[in-house]
Amino acid sequence: MGEQAVIGIDIGGTKTLSAVVDPQGRVQARRRIETPQREPEAFVAVLGEELNGLLRAAGLQREEILGVGVGAPGPLDPRTGVVFEPPNLAGWRDVPLRDLLGRATGMAAFVENDANAAALGEAWVGAGVGARDLIYVTVSTGIGGGLIFNGELYHGVSGYAGEIGHMTVEPDGPICSCGRRGHLEAVAAGPAIARMAAEAVRAGRHTHLCARPGDVLTAEAVAEAARAGDAVAREVYERAARYIGLALASLVNVLNPEMVIIGGGVSKVGDLLFGPVRAVVRERAYGRAADAAKIVPAALGDDAGVIGAAAVVYRQGAL
Amino acid sequence: MGEQAVIGIDIGGTKTLSAVVDPQGRVQARRRIETPQREPEAFVAVLGEELNGLLRAAGLQREEILGVGVGAPGPLDPRTGVVFEPPNLAGWRDVPLRDLLGRATGMAAFVENDANAAALGEAWVGAGVGARDLIYVTVSTGIGGGLIFNGELYHGVSGYAGEIGHMTVEPDGPICSCGRRGHLEAVAAGPAIARMAAEAVRAGRHTHLCARPGDVLTAEAVAEAARAGDAVAREVYERAARYIGLALASLVNVLNPEMVIIGGGVSKVGDLLFGPVRAVVRERAYGRAADAAKIVPAALGDDAGVIGAAAVVYRQGAL
Repeated sequence: MGEQAVIGIDIGGTKTLSAVVDPQGRVQARRRIETPQREPEAFVAVLGEELNGLLRAAGLQREEILGVGVGAPGPLDPRTGVVFEPPNLAGWRDVPLRDLLGRATGMAAFVENDANAAALGEAWVGAGVGARDLIYVTVSTGIGGGLIFNGELYHGVSGYAGEIGHMTVEPDGPICSCGRRGHLEAVAAGPAIARMAAEAVRAGRHTHLCARPGDVLTAEAVAEAARAGDAVAREVYERAARYIGLALASLVNVLNPEMVIIGGGVSKVGDLLFGPVRAVVRERAYGRAADAAKIVPAALGDDAGVIGAAAVVYRQGAL
Repeated sequence: MGEQAVIGIDIGGTKTLSAVVDPQGRVQARRRIETPQREPEAFVAVLGEELNGLLRAAGLQREEILGVGVGAPGPLDPRTGVVFEPPNLAGWRDVPLRDLLGRATGMAAFVENDANAAALGEAWVGAGVGARDLIYVTVSTGIGGGLIFNGELYHGVSGYAGEIGHMTVEPDGPICSCGRRGHLEAVAAGPAIARMAAEAVRAGRHTHLCARPGDVLTAEAVAEAARAGDAVAREVYERAARYIGLALASLVNVLNPEMVIIGGGVSKVGDLLFGPVRAVVRERAYGRAADAAKIVPAALGDDAGVIGAAAVVYRQGAL
């Protein structure tokens, strides 16, 4: 039994995680499924079954749950809980996810942008503990972000703040997933890393990438080759990292954060990414602001989203 | 007599303005002097004389003044009121301006970065009235900025937030006044506009700039020629404006402000600047965030600084 807990859900492009999170931010039970490719009502019904499974696993009654928080792909409005057009959920458009989930579960429900939720999780019990002003950026298939100012999530006037992946870093660069040119996501997310590596292979550069027939060029394959010392793979990773550094240097000057936390799959290479990012921030940012900003890896791994989604419920008064 | 009032001071590179500002943000009396090029103690003594002059002009007793707020060139720490190394005040280094002024005048004194003070002034009674989240940028000899989030000035962890002029917009561009490469200020402030025009003149482009012997190439001269239809001058202004648009498009995506206010001498050309800035933001920023962000001229002119410095005193509880 014990004190009350919260359920956090993190709807990802391929996996959906859910967890019971206690008031100290500890995960008491967790589940993971393939993200259902369903219409909203059927999708929410699947989430409801997950919640029941979680409650059984944690030995909790529904009445002991304060509420359920969801981190969902944006754009969305965190105040109304309406999800507009998530790129990975086909056919979703202006879905009142908060209200659907509340009705289906009988619990108080809250919806937050997935990167914002992860930022809140890292700020609460992850790499950002104790930092008042921090920038969280996640680099994987896309590049997202969340901003914590004065200890609270910053939403902007309509709830879209944090789109660090759509900062312009190469004005004449390639077209981004959003249709605009030269954005960070278009030159530094996983697909961009794979694309730059493929260009090097096609140009006949000496590399072990794609050396065997059937090799598929992914950001993970490039990371693995880079760690094994492949010069072309290292160069590609460094190029992506330098773009991330450019964007972060600008944000360090504008926002003077205490900390910049980098998470997401692409960041798992460690120093291959963090080395060039820190070097570019030092090179481009104002001395005093650059000195103040610690650039650190995320600490919660895949749990950041569910923990942060739970934090949204615990902090509901601040929303 | 009436209710209590506040004195606001705006220390500029060439002029120092001071004013009595009432609780509604109205200027009741104002004075203007050349910024004294003095050691800090002598400088503060001059400010004290200005304050006495202001009180006489407004018919107020010292006891009727709640306090004095100063907008000063940064970098500085608004919490301690220490000014580090203002570029336009030779020989100043780590000057405890707040404490010096408090002792010299016997009034409660507060110090804020000049661009932050102007942002607060515009938010209080200028172009930003009613906006909760706004970005203020001032374009003149340098490019500065101030951020208002949730109705309050955002300082960052050490008080340096708002340095929009030091965002990287042209990675291989010229060296900035801060010693780093490719910053917005180096390609879009007044001196950059004059430099780009001089390059066009030297390249033999057809222009009326510098047509007469003794003509001095300043941003004002370029603005005047642009307004008169000079194609080269218009091209130079548009180039600067497009860089400003690039930086603001990134900030619109990251911060989702309700409003972006542009002030400073270079902005006085109006549509020559605002046209390209709005076009680039529309071209580069996410649709929903771009739609939300109104890009407008500052409304308070030279009074923004003194009114904002006064606002710092009225809002002292929030500092």
